[in-house]
Amino acid sequence: MSGAAPVTIEDVRTAQARIEGKIRRTPVLRSSTVDELFGARFFFKCENFQRAGVFKSRGAFNSVYSLSDAEARYGVVTSSSGNHAAAISLAARTRGVRAYIAMPKIALKSKIAAVQRYGGEIAWVDAVGEVPTTEEYDATVARVQAEKRASLVHPYNDRRTIAGQGTCALEFLEECSDLHFILAPVGGGGLLSGTAVAANASPRGIRVIGCEPLMADDAQRSLRAGHIVPQLAPRTIADGLRTSLGDLTFAIISKGVEDIVTVTEESIVEAMRLAWSVLKIVIEPSSAVPLAALLERRIPIEGKNVGVIVSGGNVDLDRLPWSQAAT
Amino acid sequence: MSGAAPVTIEDVRTAQARIEGKIRRTPVLRSSTVDELFGARFFFKCENFQRAGVFKSRGAFNSVYSLSDAEARYGVVTSSSGNHAAAISLAARTRGVRAYIAMPKIALKSKIAAVQRYGGEIAWVDAVGEVPTTEEYDATVARVQAEKRASLVHPYNDRRTIAGQGTCALEFLEECSDLHFILAPVGGGGLLSGTAVAANASPRGIRVIGCEPLMADDAQRSLRAGHIVPQLAPRTIADGLRTSLGDLTFAIISKGVEDIVTVTEESIVEAMRLAWSVLKIVIEPSSAVPLAALLERRIPIEGKNVGVIVSGGNVDLDRLPWSQAAT
Repeated sequence: MSGAAPVTIEDVRTAQARIEGKIRRTPVLRSSTVDELFGARFFFKCENFQRAGVFKSRGAFNSVYSLSDAEARYGVVTSSSGNHAAAISLAARTRGVRAYIAMPKIALKSKIAAVQRYGGEIAWVDAVGEVPTTEEYDATVARVQAEKRASLVHPYNDRRTIAGQGTCALEFLEECSDLHFILAPVGGGGLLSGTAVAANASPRGIRVIGCEPLMADDAQRSLRAGHIVPQLAPRTIADGLRTSLGDLTFAIISKGVEDIVTVTEESIVEAMRLAWSVLKIVIEPSSAVPLAALLERRIPIEGKNVGVIVSGGNVDLDRLPWSQAAT
Repeated sequence: MSGAAPVTIEDVRTAQARIEGKIRRTPVLRSSTVDELFGARFFFKCENFQRAGVFKSRGAFNSVYSLSDAEARYGVVTSSSGNHAAAISLAARTRGVRAYIAMPKIALKSKIAAVQRYGGEIAWVDAVGEVPTTEEYDATVARVQAEKRASLVHPYNDRRTIAGQGTCALEFLEECSDLHFILAPVGGGGLLSGTAVAANASPRGIRVIGCEPLMADDAQRSLRAGHIVPQLAPRTIADGLRTSLGDLTFAIISKGVEDIVTVTEESIVEAMRLAWSVLKIVIEPSSAVPLAALLERRIPIEGKNVGVIVSGGNVDLDRLPWSQAAT
């Protein structure tokens, strides 16, 4: 990789113009209960209200609409067990092109249904074990690329994806210009990278903090080691955060993020429940991770203005973590 | 009651100015999934994000801040088993006065906790049966009024309350000026009355529809009979809509509401689940009643712009209606 910044604020601004009117400008919610609980002023940017229920629509629309007409006619392909799959399917349908999604057979029923609702065509990943390996995913994607001539859109390690995800923080800062912190979850690092690019372009010195499950703490370990330490067999409830950083996201996060904090599984469930009961929003476990970091008092935010990116709201209402014991 | 309009648009505008900055300007959410499902354009005014999680904070703040300083020093009293109690407690705490709440011992734990969190002082209603009668509630309120010289704020049959609730539709129409319909739930009728006053003041001929459970259909029966037909032993899951119209709300609704439609309990649960899964918002059963009317195709909204007031989001996360069978 070259020494130049892989994604710039101009890329994010271009993405914002490209996807305007196609994605949703999401609201920022407040809660005096949360403010009192943690002794700071909180602003929740609610990407659970984004199209397809997740911030990933930003990167997906930017990527799909970045293709030339010649490229677009063959469609797009990606591998994802979750939200990126649905977002790419929706973006492709909106542009009127095909989307091929390499999915594992163990993907959540609700996420398979979302892909199908948006017209995505599923290519099941052949896997020896229950969970496909990266190589098995890649083989399926390569097969679809060869057969269909479709363009690959990586879920996070892709400049177009990262620039698209950065539009969330750009919008956030347009509405809330005096944030001291922005907290975002980190899995593959697309959202956190885009957030860092947008926040670092502000002259105000906004501190960007990545939040991840202790059970999938590859970002924290990678930053400390100074090179990518891939995650082995993550078992966190935060299913959107099981992936490891890529070379692009590692480079951006290394430079632009102040810290990565980790949280326990118990805190994630407690935080998710707090969001549902106090903020009155349906959020998925991955989205609760920054709030979990607050519950664990991992970040010195007292008295500050704290922006929290609530990444998505796609959950199975029949399998809520706090009712597992009862069922 | 005199023939003059009991509440005017001027009262609503005065209320709006009085409570501005004390209550929250709630966001309006969209959903292409819901639009496609019902073949119209929907706008959801999310009062579940209102302070205390419910639209009732509007009426409560207007009522509490309408008191003179001389009145306010003795505090306020009301009877409520639910959201009005929490809203009055919060408004009183904000003004720095006392709130006395006559509550039944069978009130939901979560609603008792909300009153206590906001500093309301509970006066338990002595009841012979499990559910107190209106007379038993009134006796408790009268005792507190006599002992404490507190001012009574009725949960719905009160001009200040109705004017406050009307600020929701006023705000809604400021943001969405081209609505053809506004749908709101109806219990005691405070929200629906305020909505009618605000919507009827628009020159655009907005059609206001009240939605209520078939198991608590006193508003529909009252409007058809031309006089108040009180509800006897309502057993609906929509616990906020078990009350009957009062003389003020009956008079306003009779003139200003086009129709009252009723829905089944099954539709309410289905609609509540739809809101959670598609809109990603936590709403209580009462708030799902307008969406239930859409599921039952009770209102001819095809191709129109439809405003839906989502009244509140206070639920017990351990007792969700779709998981009752499993526990």
